[in-house]
Amino acid sequence: MTTRTHKRKSAPTPVAATTPAPKEDLHWHSPWEPPFRILGLGWEMPAGSLRRMPLKPAETLPEGVDVQAWHTAGVQIRFRTDAARISVRVKLKGVHGMDHLTATGQCGIDAYIGPTGAMTFAGVTRFSRAADAYQVTLCAFPTAERRTVTLNLPLYQGLDDLAIGLPSGCHLAAAPCPPKSRRIVVYGTSITQGGCASRPGMAYTNILSRRIDAEFITLGFSGSGRGEPEVARAIATLPPPAVFVMDYEANCHAIENLRRTLPVFLAILRRCWPRTQILVVSKVPYAREAYDADARERRLVNRAFQRQTVARLRRAGDSRITFLDGSNLLGRDYTECSVDGAHQTDLGFMRMANGLEQPLRRLLAR
Amino acid sequence: MTTRTHKRKSAPTPVAATTPAPKEDLHWHSPWEPPFRILGLGWEMPAGSLRRMPLKPAETLPEGVDVQAWHTAGVQIRFRTDAARISVRVKLKGVHGMDHLTATGQCGIDAYIGPTGAMTFAGVTRFSRAADAYQVTLCAFPTAERRTVTLNLPLYQGLDDLAIGLPSGCHLAAAPCPPKSRRIVVYGTSITQGGCASRPGMAYTNILSRRIDAEFITLGFSGSGRGEPEVARAIATLPPPAVFVMDYEANCHAIENLRRTLPVFLAILRRCWPRTQILVVSKVPYAREAYDADARERRLVNRAFQRQTVARLRRAGDSRITFLDGSNLLGRDYTECSVDGAHQTDLGFMRMANGLEQPLRRLLAR
Repeated sequence: MTTRTHKRKSAPTPVAATTPAPKEDLHWHSPWEPPFRILGLGWEMPAGSLRRMPLKPAETLPEGVDVQAWHTAGVQIRFRTDAARISVRVKLKGVHGMDHLTATGQCGIDAYIGPTGAMTFAGVTRFSRAADAYQVTLCAFPTAERRTVTLNLPLYQGLDDLAIGLPSGCHLAAAPCPPKSRRIVVYGTSITQGGCASRPGMAYTNILSRRIDAEFITLGFSGSGRGEPEVARAIATLPPPAVFVMDYEANCHAIENLRRTLPVFLAILRRCWPRTQILVVSKVPYAREAYDADARERRLVNRAFQRQTVARLRRAGDSRITFLDGSNLLGRDYTECSVDGAHQTDLGFMRMANGLEQPLRRLLAR
Repeated sequence: MTTRTHKRKSAPTPVAATTPAPKEDLHWHSPWEPPFRILGLGWEMPAGSLRRMPLKPAETLPEGVDVQAWHTAGVQIRFRTDAARISVRVKLKGVHGMDHLTATGQCGIDAYIGPTGAMTFAGVTRFSRAADAYQVTLCAFPTAERRTVTLNLPLYQGLDDLAIGLPSGCHLAAAPCPPKSRRIVVYGTSITQGGCASRPGMAYTNILSRRIDAEFITLGFSGSGRGEPEVARAIATLPPPAVFVMDYEANCHAIENLRRTLPVFLAILRRCWPRTQILVVSKVPYAREAYDADARERRLVNRAFQRQTVARLRRAGDSRITFLDGSNLLGRDYTECSVDGAHQTDLGFMRMANGLEQPLRRLLAR
């Protein structure tokens, strides 16, 4: 046998990294127009805008929060169609630039089909890492039956534009979406934002949204969600959600930051949301706790403060606040769950989702 | 509260992406010199070379195999030291260039500490994606006790040079390594090569090497491991391993390719290795099987052929060949396990390792 031609020396896949949409009669749709529905955005946005905080907040937000609010973590587009092929045309606010997060996770889109509770992965955008725009076939099906489609938008990048390409003449309708009364708002860190999932659908809030019939509003701000009161006041302008999850300990570092911010943040929310269930989740372990007793001790001190804060509020009469210990969410082999000792991979996120699912279901049922 | 300075608008971590080795009195060591041991390379290599196939094969190899043999998938450096800080200096053969694999996975190095069976992750190299060389602190410990250190080298890139930086005067010794008689050679595809683990240690052969006291030789060749007889003849020049794993179905596509290559490949190996346990593993499901019955049917046809081939060889008197059905390795939610429907994430690789561990232990014990 002679040598084979090998065109993709560094690509691990027989599929070309860039899959241009084939020359077919595509009709391009705006996701801001019906029957498309945008999930995961807390505030009403004008067409063309995808921002996870108010467009014009009453107070100046911390710069990191203000910038990262444009990242579309947890934002989803949902619709029903019998299209056998779904394409997307994307204009990013920037290019892929992270060494421990894939371009597909930072800037890509993935698609799931089926109803909540029975969704299956159907495709991810593959595109040049260096490009700030792409047009690709996201998924293709052998049959043209009607399906509910959910697209998960980029975790660590903003979008200047998004269009959805479907074959002309295909069926297109609104898909069922959970009522606003079942919203779950999750505030936190880079981990909450989805760092470092391999593709958007594997961020833990997106995994949970496939299992629980509730709209998740993902307010994770990488390195910047530090429990600032102006952020709490901005979040409190949302209509009261069913559940609010507080998952920002990893951004606090020193216990002083947690002591200073947590009681104030919770008080601001509770004043505006008297009936919302609040779940305070302590941090999952960092890998270095396996050999660094001080790192472990710092986490346990932070955990104790959060537990005590919740207990104090409950004693004072607030029966709608609960503490969840993040210590065991990742399991005994927690050092295997992150890319860098801190940021979860799809493995870590799947375990976090597994551990959070039942507590959230119980709170929703109350 | 005024706005905060936010210096890293797109980075999800408070740790700088590039961590230069601090100005300390580092002594740079060559991993090709004792007491360092290189694991995962089948053939003896001169200092400076890390290649997963013979340097000068007797026959011309398929170009893809020949190129990717330089990728250091499954190659490990092991040593014992009391160094409180371990640095690496790396010259890559190329830069990060994949959209669905991180730079840490394609071109990075990660470190584990502890003995086989009790290893914990201790750090990964963070570096500029655009660079073809880096010098970084790989891990740092609060104490200077003696530890066994295993470094996992890049999955999808070759190394032109590698040096290990330790504080001058630290203890340095050889670490225990499994005997050559317990080698497990794994031949296969991009999945076998580790696409798309977030960091090298999460490729399934590297996960298994932390659990089973055996040296794994990872001969996965992305898109190019197609069961060619010249590749079989090259592999058969290795000293007989304890176990050989055949995991290349995903590169065969049409059943004809499997029919043409599998019996020939196995016969070549068996002629040279009469006592080696051979495990033929059929492919894990692609995500599209959830909605594409033809894709599922193709895999089942391929699986049946592999099962029948093994049964035929056993009937003919070869009691040292076994078939393992890959259908269930990923679990019921197999569509969640890959980045692109085909290439496993850390989640998929952890499940593959979980499913392969006991079968491999049983074969080693025979």
